[in-house]
Amino acid sequence: MNIEDMVLVSVDDHVVEPPHLFEGRLPAKYADLAPQFVTRADGSNAWVYEGQEVSNVALNAVAGRPKDEYGIEPTSFAELRAGTYDIDERVKDMDANGVLGSLCFPSFPQFCGQLFARTEDKDVALAMVQAYNDWHIDEWCGTHPGRFIPCPLPAIWDPEVLAAEVRRTAAKGARAVTFSENPSKLGWPSLHSDHWDPFWKACSEEGVVVCMHIGSSSQLVVTAPDAPIDCLITLSPINIVQAATDLTWSPVLRKFPDLKVALSEGGIGWIPYFLERVDYQYRQHHIWTGQDFGDRMPSEVFSEQILTCFIDDRFGVHSREYLNMDNVMWECDYPHSDSTWPFSPEQVGEHFVGVSDHDIDRITHLNAMNHFGFDPFTLLGGRERGTVGSLRASAAGHDVSIKSTKAKVGGGAPVRASELGQALAAPQR
Amino acid sequence: MNIEDMVLVSVDDHVVEPPHLFEGRLPAKYADLAPQFVTRADGSNAWVYEGQEVSNVALNAVAGRPKDEYGIEPTSFAELRAGTYDIDERVKDMDANGVLGSLCFPSFPQFCGQLFARTEDKDVALAMVQAYNDWHIDEWCGTHPGRFIPCPLPAIWDPEVLAAEVRRTAAKGARAVTFSENPSKLGWPSLHSDHWDPFWKACSEEGVVVCMHIGSSSQLVVTAPDAPIDCLITLSPINIVQAATDLTWSPVLRKFPDLKVALSEGGIGWIPYFLERVDYQYRQHHIWTGQDFGDRMPSEVFSEQILTCFIDDRFGVHSREYLNMDNVMWECDYPHSDSTWPFSPEQVGEHFVGVSDHDIDRITHLNAMNHFGFDPFTLLGGRERGTVGSLRASAAGHDVSIKSTKAKVGGGAPVRASELGQALAAPQR
Repeated sequence: MNIEDMVLVSVDDHVVEPPHLFEGRLPAKYADLAPQFVTRADGSNAWVYEGQEVSNVALNAVAGRPKDEYGIEPTSFAELRAGTYDIDERVKDMDANGVLGSLCFPSFPQFCGQLFARTEDKDVALAMVQAYNDWHIDEWCGTHPGRFIPCPLPAIWDPEVLAAEVRRTAAKGARAVTFSENPSKLGWPSLHSDHWDPFWKACSEEGVVVCMHIGSSSQLVVTAPDAPIDCLITLSPINIVQAATDLTWSPVLRKFPDLKVALSEGGIGWIPYFLERVDYQYRQHHIWTGQDFGDRMPSEVFSEQILTCFIDDRFGVHSREYLNMDNVMWECDYPHSDSTWPFSPEQVGEHFVGVSDHDIDRITHLNAMNHFGFDPFTLLGGRERGTVGSLRASAAGHDVSIKSTKAKVGGGAPVRASELGQALAAPQR
Repeated sequence: MNIEDMVLVSVDDHVVEPPHLFEGRLPAKYADLAPQFVTRADGSNAWVYEGQEVSNVALNAVAGRPKDEYGIEPTSFAELRAGTYDIDERVKDMDANGVLGSLCFPSFPQFCGQLFARTEDKDVALAMVQAYNDWHIDEWCGTHPGRFIPCPLPAIWDPEVLAAEVRRTAAKGARAVTFSENPSKLGWPSLHSDHWDPFWKACSEEGVVVCMHIGSSSQLVVTAPDAPIDCLITLSPINIVQAATDLTWSPVLRKFPDLKVALSEGGIGWIPYFLERVDYQYRQHHIWTGQDFGDRMPSEVFSEQILTCFIDDRFGVHSREYLNMDNVMWECDYPHSDSTWPFSPEQVGEHFVGVSDHDIDRITHLNAMNHFGFDPFTLLGGRERGTVGSLRASAAGHDVSIKSTKAKVGGGAPVRASELGQALAAPQR
C-alpha cells in the first residue's frame, strides 16, 4: 500500500486543556469552584483547584519544538504549539500529518481525574468530572465531527457513580473511558477485587473500551536514585506488562467476557513473549496456585479482550502472526515527546513493507473504528476523503516546521529519573 | 538435528548447599562461627548464622515432586530430591536429562552472599565467602571434572575486596561471578555510580562473566496486596528489563567494553522489542538527556556485551535474527519450579524445528563454553561423549519418576504474591 492511501486513526493522543474549559459548563452553585487557569510570576501557566496547583510539563507537549528544548520544567502556553490546546489548530496538525481520527487523553486532571477525585464533597467532584466530560465530548470531539473518538474521565471514587457516568457519556456517544493500569497504586482496590464490578459491567454492556494508559498508576519506574532519565523513558511503556499480568490472572476478563481493555502506549513487540510466558506458567503452576481457565488458555483470553497499541514498533509488526490482528491499533501520541508527528505516515509506513493491505487497514484504522464505534467514512462521504494523501492535500501550506519557542539552549546537569518520577507521581500541588 | 545429538550446557541451575559445606574450610579461629545446619521442631531444616535463621523454600527445590506439592513453606532435606544437594546424585540427574554442563547459583547465602555481607567483622565475612567459594569450586564443581561451570559468591561489601576475590577465584578457574541485578535495592550504590569500577575492571581483565539472576535485587514485583502469586511468577523474569535498562544507559558497558553480563533466567523473547525501544528513544531523546554512544547505537553495545538466557522461549528462538546469536544461552533451572527437567531435550528441541545446527549448537553449548571458558570435550575425549543420547545411555535405570515426598494434598487458600514477596525479599532471620 502506498502511504498516501493509508487511513490513520490514532488511539492515543493528548489534549492540553484550554483555559475556557469550564466556562458555562458547571451548575451555578459550583461555578466559583471551577479550576482556575493562572499565570505565575515566572511566566509559566498552571491550573489551580481547591488549593492544588497543577503545572504543565514540557515533556508532555513538545510537538513542533527542537529536541534540545524537551525537558521537565513547567511551561507557559506561549511555549506550546497551538495544536496542543486549540481544536481547529489540532485538526490542521492532524491533516498535515495525514491523521483522520484521534482519541485524546486528559492532561491536567491526570489520567483518572485524580485531581477531582480528591475533592471531599463528591457532588462537587462529580460536577467537575461531568463538566470536563461534556466539554471533551461536545466541544473537543464535537467541533469537527468524524475526527475524534471521545474518551471521558472516570468518576473513580465510587464504582456505582463511575458506572453511571460511563452510561451517561456512552449515551452521548463515548465508547471509551480512561482508567488506571493499577488503581491499587492510587489507593483504590486492585483489579483483583470485585470492587470495580459495576464499572466492568457498565463498560461491557455499553461497549465501552477501558483505556489504561502507561503512567496511569502514577508510579513510574525509578530503578535507582541516580538513574538517568533515560531509564525511566525506556521502562515507561514496557512497565504496562504489570497491568497485562494483573488483568490476565485477575477474575476481570473471565467474569466479563465482553469487556475490552486497551493498553495505551504499551507497545506490542513484547506481547508474544508475554503470551507464551503466561501459558507456560499456567501449565507449570496452576495446580498449586488454583488458576482455572476451563478449556482455554490465558493467552486466548488475553488476546480476545486486550487491545494492544503502538506508536513505533517494527518488531511488533513483524511478529504479527503471534498477535490477534483484530486488536492491534496504531497511535500517534501527539503532542508528546515520543510522537512521530508530523511524519507519522512515513515512519509507520516503513514497518509495513511486506504487510498485507488488510493487515495495514486493521492496524491503522479498522480495529479502532470497530472497537470504539467510530465511523468517520459515512460522515466524510467515503474512505478516499480520509486518506493520508487527501488530508495532507487539504492542509497544504500549514506550517509544521520545527520552531524554538524558548531561550533555553543546551542542557544543565543530566536529568535523573527520580526527578521526573517525583514530578509526575506525587500528588500535584 | 536429532535431539539425541544435541549437547546441553545449562547456564542457570541451583545448588541446595549440603550440611557439611563449611567443614574444614574455615581458618581455625573462625571455625566456630560457621553457619550451622539445624533441624527445627517441626522437622524442617534451616541454616543458622550469627543469629540469622535461613529457611529453605520449597519453590526453590521441587524437582521430581508433583505440582500440587509446590508451595512456599520451608521444607526438610527429607522432602528434597537428593540431586538438589548431593553432587553425585546431581550428576546422575543431569545425565538422565542429557545435560552435560551446569552453572549453579547459591541458595541459602542469597544470590549476592547477603547473609555473609551483613557480618559486622568483614574479615569474618570474607572468610565465609572464601570458604563457600572454595567448597563451590573445589568440591561441587571439582568432583566431576568437565561437568560444572563455577560461579562464586561476590564479596559485595567492598569493591576492592570484591575485585580481589574475583581474581582469586579466577585463578582457581572460575570465569563467572553471581551479582545483583540492582545493587541499589540492596542498599549499595547503583550501576550508575563508579563505585563498582574495581569489580568491573577485574571481571574485564580476568574474562569473568557477571551473572545477574532474576530476583537478585531481592525486590520482587508485587502489583497489589491481593495480587495472586501467579502475577509474581509471570513478572519475575521480565522484571530483569530493569537491569537491562540500567546497564544500557549506565556508563558500565561503555567504560568496560570487554565486560560481559548475563541476564540469568531473564528470557529472550522480549529482547528484540527492547533493543528497538532503546534505539528509538536514543534518537528521540539523547539531545536533551545527554547520552552519547559515539558512532554506535545502544542496541549494538547491549548486543555485544549482554549475554541472554532462556529456559523455554519458543518465540525468542523464532526471533533469533534480531538477537546476537553468539550471546544466547540455554538454561535448565534445576531444581526450581520453572525447570524443564527431566525432559529438557524434548522441550527445548521442540523449539528448534527449522533452526540450523550451528544455531542450535551455539544456543545449547558453544556460547556457554566460549563465554565461561568451559571445555568439557577435551576432558571427556570428544563431543560425542557429551551428547544427550550418550549421557542418557549412561544413566539408564536412574529413577526420574515424579514422587510425592510430603503428606500435603491439595491447597489451602490461594497464595498471594505479597506473601512470597515478603518471604524472599525480607532479610532472612
